[in-house]
Amino acid sequence: MTNKTMKPKIGIIGATGYTGTVLTRLLSFHDKVEISYLSSEQHAGKYFYDIYPAFYSQINIKCSNFDVSKIINSCDLIFFATPNGFAKESVPKLISKKSTLKIIDLSSDFRLEEKIAYGLPEINRELIKGSNIIANPGCYPTSVILGLVPALKNKIINPNTIIIDSKSGISGAGKQLKQELHFCEVNESFSAYNLAGKHRHIPEIENEISKICGSRINVVFSPHLLPINRGILSTIYVKLTDKNIKEDEIIQMYSDHYKNEPFVKVLPKGIYANTKNVRYTNLCHLTVLKDERTEMLIIVSTIDNMVKGASGQAIQNMNLTLSLSESFGLDTLGHIP
Amino acid sequence: MTNKTMKPKIGIIGATGYTGTVLTRLLSFHDKVEISYLSSEQHAGKYFYDIYPAFYSQINIKCSNFDVSKIINSCDLIFFATPNGFAKESVPKLISKKSTLKIIDLSSDFRLEEKIAYGLPEINRELIKGSNIIANPGCYPTSVILGLVPALKNKIINPNTIIIDSKSGISGAGKQLKQELHFCEVNESFSAYNLAGKHRHIPEIENEISKICGSRINVVFSPHLLPINRGILSTIYVKLTDKNIKEDEIIQMYSDHYKNEPFVKVLPKGIYANTKNVRYTNLCHLTVLKDERTEMLIIVSTIDNMVKGASGQAIQNMNLTLSLSESFGLDTLGHIP
Amino acid sequence: MTNKTMKPKIGIIGATGYTGTVLTRLLSFHDKVEISYLSSEQHAGKYFYDIYPAFYSQINIKCSNFDVSKIINSCDLIFFATPNGFAKESVPKLISKKSTLKIIDLSSDFRLEEKIAYGLPEINRELIKGSNIIANPGCYPTSVILGLVPALKNKIINPNTIIIDSKSGISGAGKQLKQELHFCEVNESFSAYNLAGKHRHIPEIENEISKICGSRINVVFSPHLLPINRGILSTIYVKLTDKNIKEDEIIQMYSDHYKNEPFVKVLPKGIYANTKNVRYTNLCHLTVLKDERTEMLIIVSTIDNMVKGASGQAIQNMNLTLSLSESFGLDTLGHIP
Amino acid sequence: MTNKTMKPKIGIIGATGYTGTVLTRLLSFHDKVEISYLSSEQHAGKYFYDIYPAFYSQINIKCSNFDVSKIINSCDLIFFATPNGFAKESVPKLISKKSTLKIIDLSSDFRLEEKIAYGLPEINRELIKGSNIIANPGCYPTSVILGLVPALKNKIINPNTIIIDSKSGISGAGKQLKQELHFCEVNESFSAYNLAGKHRHIPEIENEISKICGSRINVVFSPHLLPINRGILSTIYVKLTDKNIKEDEIIQMYSDHYKNEPFVKVLPKGIYANTKNVRYTNLCHLTVLKDERTEMLIIVSTIDNMVKGASGQAIQNMNLTLSLSESFGLDTLGHIP
Repeated sequence: MTNKTMKPKIGIIGATGYTGTVLTRLLSFHDKVEISYLSSEQHAGKYFYDIYPAFYSQINIKCSNFDVSKIINSCDLIFFATPNGFAKESVPKLISKKSTLKIIDLSSDFRLEEKIAYGLPEINRELIKGSNIIANPGCYPTSVILGLVPALKNKIINPNTIIIDSKSGISGAGKQLKQELHFCEVNESFSAYNLAGKHRHIPEIENEISKICGSRINVVFSPHLLPINRGILSTIYVKLTDKNIKEDEIIQMYSDHYKNEPFVKVLPKGIYANTKNVRYTNLCHLTVLKDERTEMLIIVSTIDNMVKGASGQAIQNMNLTLSLSESFGLDTLGHIP
Repeated sequence: MTNKTMKPKIGIIGATGYTGTVLTRLLSFHDKVEISYLSSEQHAGKYFYDIYPAFYSQINIKCSNFDVSKIINSCDLIFFATPNGFAKESVPKLISKKSTLKIIDLSSDFRLEEKIAYGLPEINRELIKGSNIIANPGCYPTSVILGLVPALKNKIINPNTIIIDSKSGISGAGKQLKQELHFCEVNESFSAYNLAGKHRHIPEIENEISKICGSRINVVFSPHLLPINRGILSTIYVKLTDKNIKEDEIIQMYSDHYKNEPFVKVLPKGIYANTKNVRYTNLCHLTVLKDERTEMLIIVSTIDNMVKGASGQAIQNMNLTLSLSESFGLDTLGHIP
Repeated sequence: MTNKTMKPKIGIIGATGYTGTVLTRLLSFHDKVEISYLSSEQHAGKYFYDIYPAFYSQINIKCSNFDVSKIINSCDLIFFATPNGFAKESVPKLISKKSTLKIIDLSSDFRLEEKIAYGLPEINRELIKGSNIIANPGCYPTSVILGLVPALKNKIINPNTIIIDSKSGISGAGKQLKQELHFCEVNESFSAYNLAGKHRHIPEIENEISKICGSRINVVFSPHLLPINRGILSTIYVKLTDKNIKEDEIIQMYSDHYKNEPFVKVLPKGIYANTKNVRYTNLCHLTVLKDERTEMLIIVSTIDNMVKGASGQAIQNMNLTLSLSESFGLDTLGHIP
Repeated sequence: MTNKTMKPKIGIIGATGYTGTVLTRLLSFHDKVEISYLSSEQHAGKYFYDIYPAFYSQINIKCSNFDVSKIINSCDLIFFATPNGFAKESVPKLISKKSTLKIIDLSSDFRLEEKIAYGLPEINRELIKGSNIIANPGCYPTSVILGLVPALKNKIINPNTIIIDSKSGISGAGKQLKQELHFCEVNESFSAYNLAGKHRHIPEIENEISKICGSRINVVFSPHLLPINRGILSTIYVKLTDKNIKEDEIIQMYSDHYKNEPFVKVLPKGIYANTKNVRYTNLCHLTVLKDERTEMLIIVSTIDNMVKGASGQAIQNMNLTLSLSESFGLDTLGHIP
């Protein structure tokens, strides 16, 4: 059928890691594009379901090695779901041979580059639409920036007092084998890591916040590991500049800011954001509170780190750059219980 | 739009229990029908998202009390997702006022009634299509019967030697408050319950098996509680009648039997059924093995107890009785990781 | 044997709740005292192992109703492990009949009373030794105060800038039946609750901090619920007053402060406090860091909420008031893996 | 003090694996022996708490390489907590240099050797007491054999009909890095593995059962993986030879058989064995039922795979071979909740 051959053809580089797998699943349901290429260094030659039996009888594609010629010939758009460094090295080779190739990179390789679109549609939609290369945001930064933007743009907070206490499910650490990711180590445990300015997502957070503020901002950022598979919840603390502003006004300000966004929901007063309620969806749930006693704004922001924090947001960016409906193929209602 | 008004209107009685909630979610994605009525004794008057914030900004329906007139006027088909006893009492009242009303009961009220269609499509498809009342099977029986049917029909086992060791996630015990379902009690625990002939699903299993065998069969059935939300895995042991039959032949026999079924998958040799691979889907995964040393057939059958074991199967039955495509609105690929 | 009859006799009021159960277990191993009385309104008349089969063949004591005469006659010291309000009402009745009765209350009834010893041995040891009534601290406050004391006493922080982000395992919410404590709701979820000054532990935290500072202090305190049984981890942020102080100096200051404490351990640089490493013990693990970029002190403090956060600390207080070795009967090495 | 120097000196080969770690913890509490040597190929030169921060300030011992001379000079008894194969190779070297050295091997190297004592005290106590080399049983076999012995010795079952459905926590798979042990893979999953005669524990189970029966017995054995850290629960099915025997008689028979055993408890009717109730203890809990409809005996046997299933039982064997009290240093009451 001609229609089918007209669909944009999509490749995933690094398809068998966790973000690659979620991309593969989402694209397999996406009726406006077609998966044409999956690469996996570790599992080249195997069927996708050999690695993940959940895909048995659902997707019958074999994984290839990374192969520039194949990509050039078979793909209109590719996702990099690869370790940091790989995209940076590969993109020039690909672009030089096929300048129309669209690229969405889920690693951190291009996130701090000035000329590359930072793929957070809620702050960068028009730029993304016109870009061939898109740097898909990190999971923590997505939760944090979406939580801060309305307050920053409305100038109700002092951006030099931002403290971010983030908690992430284990899939955020990836699929690689490390002792600290063994089930027996993670299960029934909770801890912080990379505190006091050491996490690699800090420059990305500060870069975007500084752009909005027009001045260089430093934040305190503390990541923690939750014994769950999916979800990030960031609790953000920041001093209000106007101590008389009411909580209801702030909630309204946030609701107004996001009223046309398909994926960001400001929860009604009294409902607390919970990782479970956005799990498997591309949503961001926000709870906004004022601590009257200390004149602090507290924002709780939660996303599924694998979806809005990675692969779902990448699909959202793909939709934008391919001029498809932005929310096509993306879920907004997870699984309860 | 006229099209929209033509869609069958669906009511869910008991919408805020766990099976009701999964039904509500699945129907909200089902483009060929329309939710017209949700009842909840406990939460009448509240929005569905007041009870489950995951539904906030997704479904804007209020829960009603159970109301015969409203149901008669607003529904073409209703699901009972209610405690045992409620459907049995209510169905005659409803039928007497609206004989065309279609009813799918997820409780155990009608499962042993001879004149009511037992809603396991893989053994009863034609009967279901022509029925107005359908008794949706129990979760354990679904996993067990699907695992045994090919062996029973091909007469390769002695049906008087069936031993079923089943393990279920906690959602199977429902949403009600019981000490033994408190997080701290369940977490990091595993135990058996209702052993030695005491579980209420035994008559249902034996009833269907006996029909296939043409004689009265007793089984050993041992349920256990797994500290996970979703999933049943049944390990079934039964003596082979022909000790020379090869494992490969049996796997082929199973594959042939289910080759046209959209939701039952016989896994290739070496892949073990895992609750996680069918989670959130309407699938049943089967692993079939022969223990050469003891001449036993071992069948591992896994489903999501809330989907193929309850609400997904109910949608499958709805599709059949409404002459829609049987698999419409039902997932076959879950979420990894 | 006369020796045995000389042992102080101990009663637990509310023995079958979670803190009561942990008390019962710890006392059953404590060779210097003797359990003489267990009360449980809900389970009066039953053996303790009828409620908790883990105690089968280990403790053969029946639960009684709360009975003033029995307590007077059979106990030298009692623990209240009861809902808030019960101790406040009962203590006067008991004291009036037996002025020598020693009382350790694990509820919040006496924690804010000026004349009652606040039972945190690390700041109040001498007072506790001489007291007949001891208010055992809350779980969150224990983790927070132990984390802040060295910095407060050494005046290296601005106490008006304290932000506490705490995460607690589910046992902290007690054993009662609530929908939000059902396994299926908690499992694989994470959320905040009672933010922005609403948690009942805030007055207790502020009371103790204010006493140390000599002025009224307000803190930001944000509790969250972790899907684990045991453990609290508090991440505390506070502005340093001397921006030139080095991280190593602060760690040394903390180590010096706690060098004689049997239960508080300041971890070496690079080791992060983890709930799992203090689970089932009476320990508090502290990680202390300086965020150079923002001049903030970050303290991570973790305890087992049921042990150092409740029943273990109560035993520590009992040891002090009975002039026993302070650490008798208390574990300092949990279970790995 | 001379007393201290008189304590037997104990070495652990492979101290940083999971069984080695549990051994190290148990020995650190054992007042009648002294840890003199810990070896770890992977972590030689590091303090034990560098690998497990839970041991910080509790045990200050450095790990060595495996070193025959050091062992000879510093140990009276050693445990092998090493991968299969290592003990078999090392024991002759050690014995040839120090014939009095006592050895308890936790691997499977000697379990099928006729001349080596199989270290299940409940069936082999006297032999263990007189042995210098003891083969510590596997975790699954311990749960299975303890569950079957009374029925086998009393000849109330047909041993040729034994079906064992076992479920094990993840620590049973050890600490090594494997994709299938990654937290995200195990969490919320349940599956079988090595079915139909493939598990390496089958010869060990059959060997001991056959010795009791006096004839060669084959069993069906099906292991499954539970998403918990600790615990094995085996559900065992076997045909009764006397269909008229009553359940109460069988329970009494089991209770009588184990009435003097410190670690095996036959639970009262109506209480189901639960992994949680034996967690962290050296206990085995047994629930015994008769299925009247099928004349089957059903036995549920649960242990902590790391304690009675490995390191605790090894300490029990050490106590026997060193003529100490058998239950010294072993817990019988775990942690609730």
